[in-house]
Amino acid sequence: MRGFRGRTAVVDLRNRSVKLLDLERSFLSQYVGGRGVSSALLYSLLPSGVDPLSAENILIFATGPLTGTIWPSACRYIVSAKSPLTGALGYSNAGGYFGPRLRMAGVDFIVVKHASDSPVYLLVEDGRVEIRDAADLWGLTTRQVTEELQAEFGSKASVTAIGPAGERLVKISALINDEGRAAARTGMGAVMGSKKLKAVVAVGDKPVEAEKPEKFRQISKFAFKMAANPDKVGELSRYGTSFLVAPKNEIGDLPTRNHYDGTFEQGKQLYAEIVHEELGIKKAACFSCPIGCGRRLKLALGGLEVELEGMEYETIAALGSNCANADARAVAEMNLMCNELGLDTISVGVVLAWAMECYERGLLTKEDTGGLEIRWGDVEVMKELIRMTAHREGFGDLLAEGVHRASQIVGKGTEKYAMHVKGLEIPMQQPRAVKMFALGHATSNRGADHLYALPTICYPHLREEARKYLGLSDEELDELTDVASWKHKARAVVFSENLCAAADSLGVCKFPTVETYAVTPELLAQGYGALAGAGVTTKDLLEVGERVVNLERMFNFREGFSKKDDTLPERFTKEPLPSGPFRGSVVELEEMLEEYYRLRGWEPETGAPRAETLAMLGLPPSRQAL
Amino acid sequence: MRGFRGRTAVVDLRNRSVKLLDLERSFLSQYVGGRGVSSALLYSLLPSGVDPLSAENILIFATGPLTGTIWPSACRYIVSAKSPLTGALGYSNAGGYFGPRLRMAGVDFIVVKHASDSPVYLLVEDGRVEIRDAADLWGLTTRQVTEELQAEFGSKASVTAIGPAGERLVKISALINDEGRAAARTGMGAVMGSKKLKAVVAVGDKPVEAEKPEKFRQISKFAFKMAANPDKVGELSRYGTSFLVAPKNEIGDLPTRNHYDGTFEQGKQLYAEIVHEELGIKKAACFSCPIGCGRRLKLALGGLEVELEGMEYETIAALGSNCANADARAVAEMNLMCNELGLDTISVGVVLAWAMECYERGLLTKEDTGGLEIRWGDVEVMKELIRMTAHREGFGDLLAEGVHRASQIVGKGTEKYAMHVKGLEIPMQQPRAVKMFALGHATSNRGADHLYALPTICYPHLREEARKYLGLSDEELDELTDVASWKHKARAVVFSENLCAAADSLGVCKFPTVETYAVTPELLAQGYGALAGAGVTTKDLLEVGERVVNLERMFNFREGFSKKDDTLPERFTKEPLPSGPFRGSVVELEEMLEEYYRLRGWEPETGAPRAETLAMLGLPPSRQAL
Repeated sequence: MRGFRGRTAVVDLRNRSVKLLDLERSFLSQYVGGRGVSSALLYSLLPSGVDPLSAENILIFATGPLTGTIWPSACRYIVSAKSPLTGALGYSNAGGYFGPRLRMAGVDFIVVKHASDSPVYLLVEDGRVEIRDAADLWGLTTRQVTEELQAEFGSKASVTAIGPAGERLVKISALINDEGRAAARTGMGAVMGSKKLKAVVAVGDKPVEAEKPEKFRQISKFAFKMAANPDKVGELSRYGTSFLVAPKNEIGDLPTRNHYDGTFEQGKQLYAEIVHEELGIKKAACFSCPIGCGRRLKLALGGLEVELEGMEYETIAALGSNCANADARAVAEMNLMCNELGLDTISVGVVLAWAMECYERGLLTKEDTGGLEIRWGDVEVMKELIRMTAHREGFGDLLAEGVHRASQIVGKGTEKYAMHVKGLEIPMQQPRAVKMFALGHATSNRGADHLYALPTICYPHLREEARKYLGLSDEELDELTDVASWKHKARAVVFSENLCAAADSLGVCKFPTVETYAVTPELLAQGYGALAGAGVTTKDLLEVGERVVNLERMFNFREGFSKKDDTLPERFTKEPLPSGPFRGSVVELEEMLEEYYRLRGWEPETGAPRAETLAMLGLPPSRQAL
Repeated sequence: MRGFRGRTAVVDLRNRSVKLLDLERSFLSQYVGGRGVSSALLYSLLPSGVDPLSAENILIFATGPLTGTIWPSACRYIVSAKSPLTGALGYSNAGGYFGPRLRMAGVDFIVVKHASDSPVYLLVEDGRVEIRDAADLWGLTTRQVTEELQAEFGSKASVTAIGPAGERLVKISALINDEGRAAARTGMGAVMGSKKLKAVVAVGDKPVEAEKPEKFRQISKFAFKMAANPDKVGELSRYGTSFLVAPKNEIGDLPTRNHYDGTFEQGKQLYAEIVHEELGIKKAACFSCPIGCGRRLKLALGGLEVELEGMEYETIAALGSNCANADARAVAEMNLMCNELGLDTISVGVVLAWAMECYERGLLTKEDTGGLEIRWGDVEVMKELIRMTAHREGFGDLLAEGVHRASQIVGKGTEKYAMHVKGLEIPMQQPRAVKMFALGHATSNRGADHLYALPTICYPHLREEARKYLGLSDEELDELTDVASWKHKARAVVFSENLCAAADSLGVCKFPTVETYAVTPELLAQGYGALAGAGVTTKDLLEVGERVVNLERMFNFREGFSKKDDTLPERFTKEPLPSGPFRGSVVELEEMLEEYYRLRGWEPETGAPRAETLAMLGLPPSRQAL
């Protein structure tokens, strides 16, 4: 099919019916696709106050207009619902092949309503969606279910599935597609589990065509070349995101011991070069990606050798330094376990680190843990806890609630050590060292997340991009690129959040654009324009992003979220960073937030978008009926 | 016809041919209409270096998509060409009925190429354009030609015409439509004269319909009510723009004696209340305007009593205080003369004030003036000079060149007293008192003009609008609304220039929107959206405006304009203001310009748009072939 019609399958799991429709053109032009469309649909379709694990919640799989095309790294899909972990709008985003396959199978969006009584999976093929029985698949790990379904539909079938964790409504559970690509954040796995939806299989190979095919081919070819520019993406290509461990450790930005510190004394054991050599890690790539930040390595699992997709920086830090663990092989094994069981490695690392710190401080005892001693860096206990969490066994049943709820249940002051924002576990940045991430974590509508804003534009090597997009003077650029200063970080975060929301809506990976600017936003706008057969400028794209951010904020506001939730643990705002070049630093959150709200046109007292701000963006949206 | 198809008549005066076509949809979505489309067409069609008074120049009449609809104050048309006064892109904008009639006659744009050997006029009727002989009309005043043509085509025919000044290629000559509405700036009258085009008559009464008629009617009705809000437009409605004389005189913003001062000691004689009573001025309104800032008064002209459209604030100050003339009746008579002869009252006032100051300083003598003594406030000499200028007689032949060229021809240091930017005479603001106008005059692509940026958003009574659109903090808003401080004026000017360019492209008057914010930009975007049948947001509109401003800058850059031309006379930057509350003030131009270029994404050294800035706006434009 040419262009992007917003082909949507509305699947009702209660009635076992599937309705097919195209979204309205004007709705698509406002929200583009992917995250934009899924957020807008959820805002339209969900009343406030819905229990996220009830049948009333709605689960959406969404591709973007570029997903599955020849555009570089256009491999992303979004899975979205009200989050059982946070109570806010939830979504997660993954690469691999599932998104492209979905489009090649002729479907752009799947909207799943209600719940099934018995396990099912969805088969997407030839522009149709079928609800199929999954009784035999229930209980399997993500790898097993993928293998089963590929045995039936061939190796070109792409599968996204939950593991035992999602089935058990673990609130930090993930979807895993293509044997290791994770849509992990905000507990979308549990929503699938609550609907008894084990997996979605996409079978198709119809090429996705642009409205202006020749122009699109030309621009894509150029963008492909740009995305492979070694000056921009060399490190990422060579070591994947794990290249970050070394520089982060050196500037005090490697979360260590439950985000207490930013420097890990044994950090070198986790540096990319060493880990790659020690574990024999090889390169891998998602659909249509010239960078190839993915990694593959082989590990023994229950006597068998299996190939694992991993390890990503976030996982290395979450299950490594943040738990005071320097054993890279153990990190890999836990990574594999999380993938198999269907768990978010970031959330798992944070909830384990919380347990370790609380145990060390005597706030958790063997009475709480069912006899387990939970000590820093004890990898055997960590593995046991991961297994128990996925199965909600014993103390794992508590951890399965996520760090925020777990700490509230335990009480006794453990709340102070729960590293979360809006209920989502904080990923692997040390906000006292890199202030732009401090603000980005606080403002993110889905809770603390490094990919929501990804404000790398503050780094000195992207100074010219900052000059171009943020309109700052030389003096202001000096302050911006001083990552430990709070100055101008609000401007960078607003811009980056908008650009990220646009990328998430287009279906492209953020690494070529927001992370590295190898593919400029201008090029991205041109590519989308050629795909959609419309004139699209960078400003248009940024406006779409801004609209999506505002809409998501409105969703959350309706659920009771406000300024009080745009916050950070006191650890970041009150405890001076113990080590590294920015030793002594704390986060000046109030100052940054004030500027951020002002730049966003949000109320300073509540953080809610002003009516005028919404009006300027053409919000509230026209409600899309399904 | 529904919506806006960009119906264009390409009139070749050499071949006497007329070609009809519709502009491309994507071109219209980029530039909307009016000023946007005419600037883009001129940029596409004109090579650089064309002599503005040669047959190679192209003259465009342009309406906007809202012109002639039921939208409040949607009465504007643009006349555009390379300017013989400035050498830059020229355009002027007028209200009344001509624009609406043009659309009701079925034509949105007229592109006039080449020149005729003998006088002609254009008749627009039933979607066609006819080139007609105007031998009998040549030499007539604007009133006479209008009366002649209305005698032929009926009183509902609307006429825009040049007078003797335009015929004689006077570089400060205007088009006058509907007996007193002037498209006066940048010498478009001379371009008409050079093409031997005396007038354009539009005959038509087909209603202009929206794509979404019901929605458009609803929004227009609401906008109409808003535009009539007495809290916002009460003064404007009661006294027209002449209400400004009093407050401006009181804050030192009433140009006096060739912009030397900002307070006119006899100023009270020109205050609205007094002038209205003395001259028996009544209210008048353009097509579809609930404000009615127009004025009508009766004067004796050569023994006959005629009704005059006037007087506008700019005219009162230009021919009054700026020439040290406190005789309101004399101002009215000169206003009438300028309209009849087809002259720009602002430019006339400035060039007369220059002559007066130079005469006082002994830089001009009776030898230069052909025996005339040119003294401050001598209304009989002023009238004589207006007549001589229009006819290029004696000393008037020099004044007909505009103040910039006139001062260059005279030399002897008179250049210092020529109040112009980029060759266009500076209108009636005192830049040392109101810094936002200082910057706006300097940056304007058409040369000094108060309607290019119209940055009234800096005034304290629009503080909430500034908060909303400029994203400033309370402290910054305090600085912004201190009109004599240079702080943040760049941000206000960038925003206002963009909004003005959007309004000029839509075909609406700036008073309900940019001047007063009675009709919000949001409402304007909604109205345009309903007219065009597309989703349009405020941000979209502002992007169009930004695109137009950048495109016009590119046009000028190609003609040799650069940062050196974004300047002000030394009177404003070096001579302290002699009186009023801001006594001692000078304009901090460099500081404001630096910020302005940065916010615009233009090179600090040259003032040229950066390649990235253009790319973000989707420029260079696709060239529209005609």
